[in-house]
Amino acid sequence: MSGIVYGVGVGPGDPELITLKAHRLISEADVVAYPAPDSGDSFARRIVADFLPKGVREIPMIVPMRVERFPAQDVYDAGAAEISKAAKAGKNVVVLCEGDPFFYGSFMYLFARLSGDIEMQVVPGVSSLGAVTAAAQTPLCAREETLSVLPATLDEAELVERLNRVNAVAMMKIGRHFAKAKRAIDAAGLTDRAMFVSHASLPEQHACPLADAPETAPYFSMIVIPGRDAHV
Amino acid sequence: MSGIVYGVGVGPGDPELITLKAHRLISEADVVAYPAPDSGDSFARRIVADFLPKGVREIPMIVPMRVERFPAQDVYDAGAAEISKAAKAGKNVVVLCEGDPFFYGSFMYLFARLSGDIEMQVVPGVSSLGAVTAAAQTPLCAREETLSVLPATLDEAELVERLNRVNAVAMMKIGRHFAKAKRAIDAAGLTDRAMFVSHASLPEQHACPLADAPETAPYFSMIVIPGRDAHV
Repeated sequence: MSGIVYGVGVGPGDPELITLKAHRLISEADVVAYPAPDSGDSFARRIVADFLPKGVREIPMIVPMRVERFPAQDVYDAGAAEISKAAKAGKNVVVLCEGDPFFYGSFMYLFARLSGDIEMQVVPGVSSLGAVTAAAQTPLCAREETLSVLPATLDEAELVERLNRVNAVAMMKIGRHFAKAKRAIDAAGLTDRAMFVSHASLPEQHACPLADAPETAPYFSMIVIPGRDAHV
Repeated sequence: MSGIVYGVGVGPGDPELITLKAHRLISEADVVAYPAPDSGDSFARRIVADFLPKGVREIPMIVPMRVERFPAQDVYDAGAAEISKAAKAGKNVVVLCEGDPFFYGSFMYLFARLSGDIEMQVVPGVSSLGAVTAAAQTPLCAREETLSVLPATLDEAELVERLNRVNAVAMMKIGRHFAKAKRAIDAAGLTDRAMFVSHASLPEQHACPLADAPETAPYFSMIVIPGRDAHV
Protein backbone atom coordinates (compact mmCIF):
# COMPACT_ATOMS: atom_id res chain seq x y z
CA MET A 1 0.00 0.00 0.00
CA SER A 2 1.49 3.30 -1.12
CA GLY A 3 1.22 6.38 1.04
CA ILE A 4 -0.37 9.66 0.02
CA VAL A 5 1.51 12.84 -0.79
CA TYR A 6 -0.27 15.90 0.64
CA GLY A 7 0.48 19.41 -0.62
CA VAL A 8 -0.46 21.39 2.46
CA GLY A 9 -0.85 25.16 2.50
CA VAL A 10 0.54 26.54 5.76
CA GLY A 11 -0.70 30.09 5.22
CA PRO A 12 1.03 33.47 5.20
CA GLY A 13 3.23 33.21 8.31
CA ASP A 14 1.25 33.33 11.57
CA PRO A 15 1.20 29.71 12.82
CA GLU A 16 -2.38 30.27 14.02
CA LEU A 17 -3.43 30.80 10.38
CA ILE A 18 -2.89 27.17 9.40
CA THR A 19 -6.10 25.17 8.99
CA LEU A 20 -7.33 22.45 11.33
CA LYS A 21 -6.71 19.99 8.49
CA ALA A 22 -3.12 21.14 7.98
CA HIS A 23 -2.59 20.84 11.73
CA ARG A 24 -3.92 17.28 11.77
CA LEU A 25 -1.92 16.10 8.76
CA ILE A 26 1.32 17.69 9.98
CA SER A 27 0.87 16.29 13.50
CA GLU A 28 0.42 12.78 12.08
CA ALA A 29 3.01 12.96 9.27
CA ASP A 30 5.60 10.21 8.76
CA VAL A 31 7.65 12.45 6.49
CA VAL A 32 7.62 16.20 5.77
CA ALA A 33 9.24 17.88 2.76
CA TYR A 34 9.73 21.59 2.16
CA PRO A 35 11.69 24.10 0.09
CA ALA A 36 14.53 25.88 1.87
CA PRO A 37 17.01 28.56 0.85
CA ASP A 38 20.71 27.77 0.63
CA SER A 39 21.34 29.87 3.71
CA GLY A 40 18.91 30.38 6.59
CA ASP A 41 15.91 28.25 7.48
CA SER A 42 12.80 27.29 5.53
CA PHE A 43 9.92 29.75 5.96
CA ALA A 44 7.29 27.03 5.46
CA ARG A 45 8.96 24.81 8.07
CA ARG A 46 9.34 27.68 10.53
CA ILE A 47 5.57 28.37 10.42
CA VAL A 48 4.72 24.85 11.60
CA ALA A 49 7.84 24.05 13.67
CA ASP A 50 5.81 23.69 16.88
CA PHE A 51 3.46 21.15 15.28
CA LEU A 52 6.02 18.73 13.82
CA PRO A 53 5.86 15.32 15.50
CA LYS A 54 8.95 14.03 17.31
CA GLY A 55 11.17 11.95 15.08
CA VAL A 56 9.47 12.95 11.83
CA ARG A 57 11.70 12.42 8.82
CA GLU A 58 12.48 15.65 6.98
CA ILE A 59 13.23 16.14 3.28
CA PRO A 60 14.48 19.70 2.73
CA MET A 61 14.76 20.79 -0.90
CA ILE A 62 17.50 23.39 -1.06
CA VAL A 63 16.60 25.90 -3.77
CA PRO A 64 19.45 28.36 -4.45
CA MET A 65 18.06 31.90 -4.03
CA ARG A 66 19.83 33.30 -7.07
CA VAL A 67 17.83 31.17 -9.49
CA GLU A 68 14.52 32.13 -7.92
CA ARG A 69 12.98 33.02 -11.27
CA PHE A 70 14.17 29.82 -12.93
CA PRO A 71 13.95 27.22 -10.19
CA ALA A 72 16.65 24.61 -10.22
CA GLN A 73 14.80 21.75 -11.85
CA ASP A 74 17.32 19.18 -10.59
CA VAL A 75 16.43 20.13 -6.98
CA TYR A 76 12.82 19.19 -7.67
CA ASP A 77 13.86 16.08 -9.57
CA ALA A 78 15.81 14.87 -6.55
CA GLY A 79 13.09 15.93 -4.07
CA ALA A 80 10.39 14.23 -6.11
CA ALA A 81 12.43 11.02 -6.29
CA GLU A 82 12.93 10.96 -2.52
CA ILE A 83 9.24 11.73 -1.83
CA SER A 84 8.15 9.08 -4.31
CA LYS A 85 10.37 6.46 -2.67
CA ALA A 86 8.95 7.26 0.79
CA ALA A 87 5.35 7.14 -0.47
CA LYS A 88 5.90 3.84 -2.26
CA ALA A 89 7.29 2.45 0.99
CA GLY A 90 3.87 3.21 2.51
CA LYS A 91 4.63 6.51 4.22
CA ASN A 92 2.38 9.56 4.06
CA VAL A 93 4.39 12.60 3.00
CA VAL A 94 3.32 16.14 3.83
CA VAL A 95 4.82 18.81 1.57
CA LEU A 96 4.75 22.15 3.39
CA CYS A 97 3.78 25.06 1.12
CA GLU A 98 3.79 28.76 2.04
CA GLY A 99 0.36 30.31 1.52
CA ASP A 100 -1.75 28.19 -0.82
CA PRO A 101 -0.05 25.34 -2.75
CA PHE A 102 -1.49 26.18 -6.19
CA PHE A 103 -1.26 29.99 -5.98
CA TYR A 104 2.20 30.87 -7.35
CA GLY A 105 3.62 28.01 -5.32
CA SER A 106 6.69 25.88 -6.00
CA PHE A 107 4.56 22.84 -5.10
CA MET A 108 3.50 22.76 -8.76
CA TYR A 109 6.98 21.48 -9.69
CA LEU A 110 6.52 18.45 -7.45
CA PHE A 111 2.92 17.99 -8.55
CA ALA A 112 4.00 17.92 -12.20
CA ARG A 113 6.57 15.23 -11.44
CA LEU A 114 4.51 12.99 -9.12
CA SER A 115 0.80 13.32 -9.85
CA GLY A 116 0.58 10.62 -12.51
CA ASP A 117 2.37 8.10 -10.35
CA ILE A 118 1.25 8.61 -6.74
CA GLU A 119 -1.97 9.65 -5.01
CA MET A 120 -1.73 13.37 -4.28
CA GLN A 121 -4.12 15.57 -2.33
CA VAL A 122 -3.95 19.33 -2.01
CA VAL A 123 -5.06 21.08 1.16
CA PRO A 124 -5.72 24.76 0.40
CA GLY A 125 -4.29 27.39 2.72
CA VAL A 126 -4.77 31.06 3.52
CA SER A 127 -2.99 32.94 0.73
CA SER A 128 -0.88 36.05 1.14
CA LEU A 129 -3.72 38.03 -0.50
CA GLY A 130 -6.04 37.52 2.46
CA ALA A 131 -3.32 38.28 4.99
CA VAL A 132 -2.31 41.46 3.17
CA THR A 133 -5.83 42.90 2.94
CA ALA A 134 -6.44 42.02 6.59
CA ALA A 135 -3.23 43.89 7.51
CA ALA A 136 -4.14 46.87 5.32
CA GLN A 137 -7.65 46.86 6.80
CA THR A 138 -9.20 47.22 3.38
CA PRO A 139 -11.68 45.15 1.40
CA LEU A 140 -10.07 44.14 -1.90
CA CYS A 141 -12.90 43.73 -4.39
CA ALA A 142 -16.66 43.69 -4.43
CA ARG A 143 -19.70 43.04 -6.60
CA GLU A 144 -18.85 43.12 -10.35
CA GLU A 145 -15.26 44.27 -9.95
CA THR A 146 -12.46 42.26 -11.48
CA LEU A 147 -9.27 41.52 -9.54
CA SER A 148 -5.92 41.48 -11.31
CA VAL A 149 -2.96 39.79 -9.65
CA LEU A 150 0.16 41.20 -11.30
CA PRO A 151 3.75 40.08 -10.67
CA ALA A 152 5.96 43.15 -10.42
CA THR A 153 8.50 41.24 -12.50
CA LEU A 154 6.62 42.29 -15.67
CA ASP A 155 8.27 45.10 -17.58
CA GLU A 156 7.25 48.66 -16.83
CA ALA A 157 5.33 49.36 -20.03
CA GLU A 158 3.27 46.21 -19.64
CA LEU A 159 2.56 47.02 -15.98
CA VAL A 160 1.31 50.51 -16.89
CA GLU A 161 -0.77 49.17 -19.77
CA ARG A 162 -2.41 46.57 -17.50
CA LEU A 163 -2.89 49.02 -14.62
CA ASN A 164 -4.75 51.35 -16.98
CA ARG A 165 -7.44 48.69 -17.46
CA VAL A 166 -8.02 47.24 -13.98
CA ASN A 167 -10.43 47.51 -11.07
CA ALA A 168 -8.79 45.94 -8.00
CA VAL A 169 -5.09 44.99 -8.04
CA ALA A 170 -2.70 42.90 -5.98
CA MET A 171 0.92 43.31 -7.04
CA MET A 172 3.23 40.51 -5.90
CA LYS A 173 6.93 39.68 -6.10
CA ILE A 174 7.88 43.27 -5.33
CA GLY A 175 11.39 42.97 -3.83
CA ARG A 176 13.93 44.48 -6.21
CA HIS A 177 11.13 45.59 -8.61
CA PHE A 178 9.72 48.08 -6.08
CA ALA A 179 10.87 51.33 -7.72
CA LYS A 180 9.53 50.21 -11.10
CA ALA A 181 6.22 49.13 -9.52
CA LYS A 182 5.78 52.53 -7.86
CA ARG A 183 6.51 54.38 -11.12
CA ALA A 184 3.98 52.24 -13.00
CA ILE A 185 1.27 52.76 -10.36
CA ASP A 186 1.94 56.48 -10.41
CA ALA A 187 1.77 56.59 -14.22
CA ALA A 188 -1.63 54.90 -14.05
CA GLY A 189 -2.87 57.43 -11.50
CA LEU A 190 -3.50 54.84 -8.79
CA THR A 191 -1.06 55.83 -6.04
CA ASP A 192 -3.73 57.50 -3.90
CA ARG A 193 -5.63 54.22 -3.51
CA ALA A 194 -2.59 51.93 -3.15
CA MET A 195 -1.49 50.31 0.13
CA PHE A 196 1.88 48.76 0.90
CA VAL A 197 2.14 45.75 3.23
CA SER A 198 5.19 43.79 4.33
CA HIS A 199 5.40 40.63 6.49
CA ALA A 200 1.62 40.28 6.67
CA SER A 201 0.41 38.31 9.72
CA LEU A 202 3.92 38.22 11.29
CA PRO A 203 4.96 40.21 14.39
CA GLU A 204 6.97 42.62 12.18
CA GLN A 205 3.92 43.28 9.93
CA HIS A 206 3.87 46.79 8.45
CA ALA A 207 1.04 48.40 6.47
CA CYS A 208 0.80 51.98 5.17
CA PRO A 209 -0.30 54.00 2.14
CA LEU A 210 2.09 53.32 -0.75
CA ALA A 211 3.08 56.99 -0.77
CA ASP A 212 4.48 56.55 2.78
CA ALA A 213 6.25 53.24 2.14
CA PRO A 214 9.96 52.81 2.89
CA GLU A 215 12.47 53.08 0.05
CA THR A 216 13.10 49.37 -0.22
CA ALA A 217 10.66 46.49 0.02
CA PRO A 218 11.45 43.08 1.52
CA TYR A 219 10.72 39.92 -0.43
CA PHE A 220 7.56 39.29 1.60
CA SER A 221 5.73 42.44 0.61
CA MET A 222 2.78 43.32 -1.61
CA ILE A 223 0.93 46.33 -2.97
CA VAL A 224 -2.86 46.26 -3.01
CA ILE A 225 -5.17 48.67 -4.77
CA PRO A 226 -8.77 48.09 -3.66
CA GLY A 227 -11.49 48.38 -6.28
CA ARG A 228 -13.61 51.54 -6.12
CA ASP A 229 -16.67 49.59 -4.95
CA ALA A 230 -14.65 48.02 -2.16
CA HIS A 231 -12.87 51.18 -1.10
CA VAL A 232 -14.22 52.19 2.28
CA MET B 1 -14.08 48.69 27.95
CA SER B 2 -15.51 48.03 24.49
CA GLY B 3 -15.24 44.60 22.91
CA ILE B 4 -13.61 43.84 19.58
CA VAL B 5 -15.46 42.97 16.38
CA TYR B 6 -13.66 40.18 14.50
CA GLY B 7 -14.37 39.52 10.82
CA VAL B 8 -13.45 35.85 10.66
CA GLY B 9 -13.03 33.91 7.42
CA VAL B 10 -14.47 30.42 7.83
CA GLY B 11 -13.19 29.07 4.51
CA PRO B 12 -14.89 27.42 1.54
CA GLY B 13 -17.14 24.89 3.28
CA ASP B 14 -15.19 21.99 4.85
CA PRO B 15 -15.21 22.72 8.60
CA GLU B 16 -11.64 21.37 8.79
CA LEU B 17 -10.53 24.24 6.52
CA ILE B 18 -11.08 26.91 9.16
CA THR B 19 -7.89 28.24 10.75
CA LEU B 20 -6.72 27.57 14.29
CA LYS B 21 -7.31 31.26 14.98
CA ALA B 22 -10.89 31.16 13.66
CA HIS B 23 -11.48 28.06 15.79
CA ARG B 24 -10.18 29.80 18.92
CA LEU B 25 -12.15 33.01 18.39
CA ILE B 26 -15.38 31.19 17.58
CA SER B 27 -15.01 28.84 20.56
CA GLU B 28 -14.57 31.83 22.89
CA ALA B 29 -17.11 34.19 21.30
CA ASP B 30 -19.71 36.03 23.38
CA VAL B 31 -21.70 36.91 20.27
CA VAL B 32 -21.62 35.65 16.68
CA ALA B 33 -23.18 37.42 13.69
CA TYR B 34 -23.62 36.09 10.16
CA PRO B 35 -25.55 36.65 6.93
CA ALA B 36 -28.39 34.24 6.24
CA PRO B 37 -30.84 33.81 3.36
CA ASP B 38 -34.54 34.42 3.91
CA SER B 39 -35.20 30.70 3.63
CA GLY B 40 -32.81 27.93 4.66
CA ASP B 41 -29.85 28.21 6.97
CA SER B 42 -26.71 30.36 6.88
CA PHE B 43 -23.83 28.73 5.00
CA ALA B 44 -21.20 30.48 7.15
CA ARG B 45 -22.93 29.36 10.36
CA ARG B 46 -23.32 25.79 9.09
CA ILE B 47 -19.55 25.50 8.50
CA VAL B 48 -18.75 26.24 12.15
CA ALA B 49 -21.91 24.89 13.81
CA ASP B 50 -19.94 22.26 15.77
CA PHE B 51 -17.58 24.89 17.20
CA LEU B 52 -20.15 27.39 18.53
CA PRO B 53 -20.04 27.63 22.32
CA LYS B 54 -23.16 26.75 24.30
CA GLY B 55 -25.37 29.74 24.94
CA VAL B 56 -23.60 32.05 22.48
CA ARG B 57 -25.79 34.95 21.41
CA GLU B 58 -26.49 34.92 17.67
CA ILE B 59 -27.19 37.88 15.39
CA PRO B 60 -28.41 36.59 12.01
CA MET B 61 -28.63 39.19 9.25
CA ILE B 62 -31.36 38.06 6.89
CA VAL B 63 -30.41 39.13 3.36
CA PRO B 64 -33.21 38.50 0.86
CA MET B 65 -31.84 36.35 -1.98
CA ARG B 66 -33.54 38.32 -4.73
CA VAL B 67 -31.48 41.44 -4.05
CA GLU B 68 -28.20 39.53 -4.04
CA ARG B 69 -26.58 41.98 -6.45
CA PHE B 70 -27.75 45.03 -4.53
CA PRO B 71 -27.61 44.00 -0.90
CA ALA B 72 -30.34 45.35 1.27
CA GLN B 73 -28.49 48.19 2.96
CA ASP B 74 -31.05 48.41 5.76
CA VAL B 75 -30.21 44.82 6.75
CA TYR B 76 -26.59 45.83 7.28
CA ASP B 77 -27.63 49.06 9.02
CA ALA B 78 -29.64 47.05 11.54
CA GLY B 79 -26.95 44.35 11.90
CA ALA B 80 -24.23 46.96 12.41
CA ALA B 81 -26.30 48.72 15.05
CA GLU B 82 -26.85 45.51 16.98
CA ILE B 83 -23.18 44.48 16.71
CA SER B 84 -22.06 47.95 17.79
CA LYS B 85 -24.34 47.84 20.84
CA ALA B 86 -22.95 44.45 21.89
CA ALA B 87 -19.34 45.57 21.42
CA LYS B 88 -19.91 48.79 23.39
CA ALA B 89 -21.35 46.67 26.19
CA GLY B 90 -17.95 44.93 26.35
CA LYS B 91 -18.71 41.81 24.32
CA ASN B 92 -16.42 40.40 21.64
CA VAL B 93 -18.39 39.83 18.47
CA VAL B 94 -17.30 37.31 15.82
CA VAL B 95 -18.74 37.96 12.35
CA LEU B 96 -18.67 34.70 10.38
CA CYS B 97 -17.64 35.21 6.74
CA GLU B 98 -17.63 32.57 3.99
CA GLY B 99 -14.17 32.20 2.44
CA ASP B 100 -12.04 35.27 3.15
CA PRO B 101 -13.74 38.39 4.61
CA PHE B 102 -12.24 40.93 2.19
CA PHE B 103 -12.44 38.84 -1.01
CA TYR B 104 -15.87 39.62 -2.53
CA GLY B 105 -17.35 39.31 0.96
CA SER B 106 -20.42 40.99 2.42
CA PHE B 107 -18.35 41.71 5.54
CA MET B 108 -17.24 44.91 3.80
CA TYR B 109 -20.71 46.37 4.37
CA LEU B 110 -20.30 45.96 8.13
CA PHE B 111 -16.69 47.12 8.02
CA ALA B 112 -17.73 50.32 6.24
CA ARG B 113 -20.32 51.02 8.93
CA LEU B 114 -18.32 50.13 12.04
CA SER B 115 -14.59 50.56 11.45
CA GLY B 116 -14.36 54.21 12.45
CA ASP B 117 -16.20 53.62 15.69
CA ILE B 118 -15.12 50.24 17.09
CA GLU B 119 -11.91 48.19 17.11
CA MET B 120 -12.15 45.70 14.25
CA GLN B 121 -9.77 42.90 13.35
CA VAL B 122 -9.92 40.73 10.26
CA VAL B 123 -8.84 37.09 10.34
CA PRO B 124 -8.14 35.89 6.79
CA GLY B 125 -9.58 32.58 5.66
CA VAL B 126 -9.08 30.04 2.88
CA SER B 127 -10.79 31.53 -0.16
CA SER B 128 -12.89 29.64 -2.69
CA LEU B 129 -10.00 30.04 -5.18
CA GLY B 130 -7.73 27.71 -3.21
CA ALA B 131 -10.48 25.17 -2.65
CA VAL B 132 -11.43 25.15 -6.33
CA THR B 133 -7.90 24.61 -7.63
CA ALA B 134 -7.35 21.87 -5.03
CA ALA B 135 -10.56 20.18 -6.23
CA ALA B 136 -9.60 20.55 -9.89
CA GLN B 137 -6.10 19.25 -9.09
CA THR B 138 -4.50 22.02 -11.09
CA PRO B 139 -2.00 24.75 -10.25
CA LEU B 140 -3.56 28.13 -11.06
CA CYS B 141 -0.68 30.46 -11.90
CA ALA B 142 3.09 30.48 -11.84
CA ARG B 143 6.14 32.65 -12.31
CA GLU B 144 5.36 35.86 -14.27
CA GLU B 145 1.77 34.98 -15.12
CA THR B 146 -1.04 37.33 -14.19
CA LEU B 147 -4.24 36.06 -12.63
CA SER B 148 -7.58 37.64 -13.54
CA VAL B 149 -10.58 37.09 -11.31
CA LEU B 150 -13.66 37.83 -13.40
CA PRO B 151 -17.26 37.88 -12.18
CA ALA B 152 -19.46 36.14 -14.77
CA THR B 153 -21.97 38.91 -14.21
CA LEU B 154 -20.04 41.12 -16.67
CA ASP B 155 -21.62 41.37 -20.09
CA GLU B 156 -20.59 38.92 -22.77
CA ALA B 157 -18.61 41.31 -24.96
CA GLU B 158 -16.58 42.54 -21.98
CA LEU B 159 -15.92 38.98 -20.84
CA VAL B 160 -14.63 37.99 -24.28
CA GLU B 161 -12.53 41.13 -24.54
CA ARG B 162 -10.93 40.45 -21.13
CA LEU B 163 -10.48 36.73 -21.80
CA ASN B 164 -8.56 37.56 -24.96
CA ARG B 165 -5.90 39.29 -22.87
CA VAL B 166 -5.39 37.02 -19.84
CA ASN B 167 -3.01 34.36 -18.55
CA ALA B 168 -4.72 32.51 -15.69
CA VAL B 169 -8.43 33.05 -14.95
CA ALA B 170 -10.87 32.36 -12.16
CA MET B 171 -14.46 33.09 -13.10
CA MET B 172 -16.82 33.52 -10.16
CA LYS B 173 -20.53 34.16 -9.61
CA ILE B 174 -21.44 31.69 -12.35
CA GLY B 175 -24.99 30.57 -11.39
CA ARG B 176 -27.46 31.89 -13.94
CA HIS B 177 -24.63 33.38 -16.04
CA PHE B 178 -23.24 29.93 -16.90
CA ALA B 179 -24.33 29.73 -20.55
CA LYS B 180 -22.94 33.20 -21.25
CA ALA B 181 -19.67 32.36 -19.47
CA LYS B 182 -19.23 29.20 -21.57
CA ARG B 183 -19.89 31.10 -24.82
CA ALA B 184 -17.35 33.78 -23.87
CA ILE B 185 -14.67 31.21 -22.96
CA ASP B 186 -15.31 29.39 -26.20
CA ALA B 187 -15.08 32.61 -28.21
CA ALA B 188 -11.69 33.30 -26.59
CA GLY B 189 -10.48 29.81 -27.51
CA LEU B 190 -9.91 28.77 -23.87
CA THR B 191 -12.39 25.91 -23.42
CA ASP B 192 -9.75 23.20 -23.73
CA ARG B 193 -7.88 24.50 -20.66
CA ALA B 194 -10.96 25.36 -18.55
CA MET B 195 -12.11 23.35 -15.53
CA PHE B 196 -15.52 23.49 -13.84
CA VAL B 197 -15.83 22.98 -10.08
CA SER B 198 -18.91 23.05 -7.89
CA HIS B 199 -19.20 22.77 -4.09
CA ALA B 200 -15.42 22.75 -3.62
CA SER B 201 -14.30 21.08 -0.36
CA LEU B 202 -17.83 19.81 0.44
CA PRO B 203 -18.89 16.14 0.25
CA GLU B 204 -20.85 16.87 -2.96
CA GLN B 205 -17.77 18.44 -4.61
CA HIS B 206 -17.65 17.97 -8.39
CA ALA B 207 -14.77 18.84 -10.74
CA CYS B 208 -14.49 18.17 -14.48
CA PRO B 209 -13.32 19.76 -17.73
CA LEU B 210 -15.66 22.63 -18.63
CA ALA B 211 -16.61 20.81 -21.83
CA ASP B 212 -18.07 17.98 -19.69
CA ALA B 213 -19.86 20.21 -17.16
CA PRO B 214 -23.59 19.81 -16.48
CA GLU B 215 -26.07 22.14 -18.21
CA THR B 216 -26.69 24.25 -15.15
CA ALA B 217 -24.29 25.46 -12.48
CA PRO B 218 -25.15 25.88 -8.80
CA TYR B 219 -24.42 29.15 -7.03
CA PHE B 220 -21.29 27.67 -5.41
CA SER B 221 -19.40 26.94 -8.60
CA MET B 222 -16.43 28.39 -10.43
CA ILE B 223 -14.52 28.05 -13.69
CA VAL B 224 -10.72 28.08 -13.56
CA ILE B 225 -8.36 28.39 -16.51
CA PRO B 226 -4.78 27.67 -15.38
CA GLY B 227 -2.03 29.77 -16.90
CA ARG B 228 0.10 28.04 -19.52
CA ASP B 229 3.14 27.97 -17.22
CA ALA B 230 1.05 26.37 -14.47
CA HIS B 231 -0.72 23.89 -16.72
CA VAL B 232 0.59 20.43 -15.87
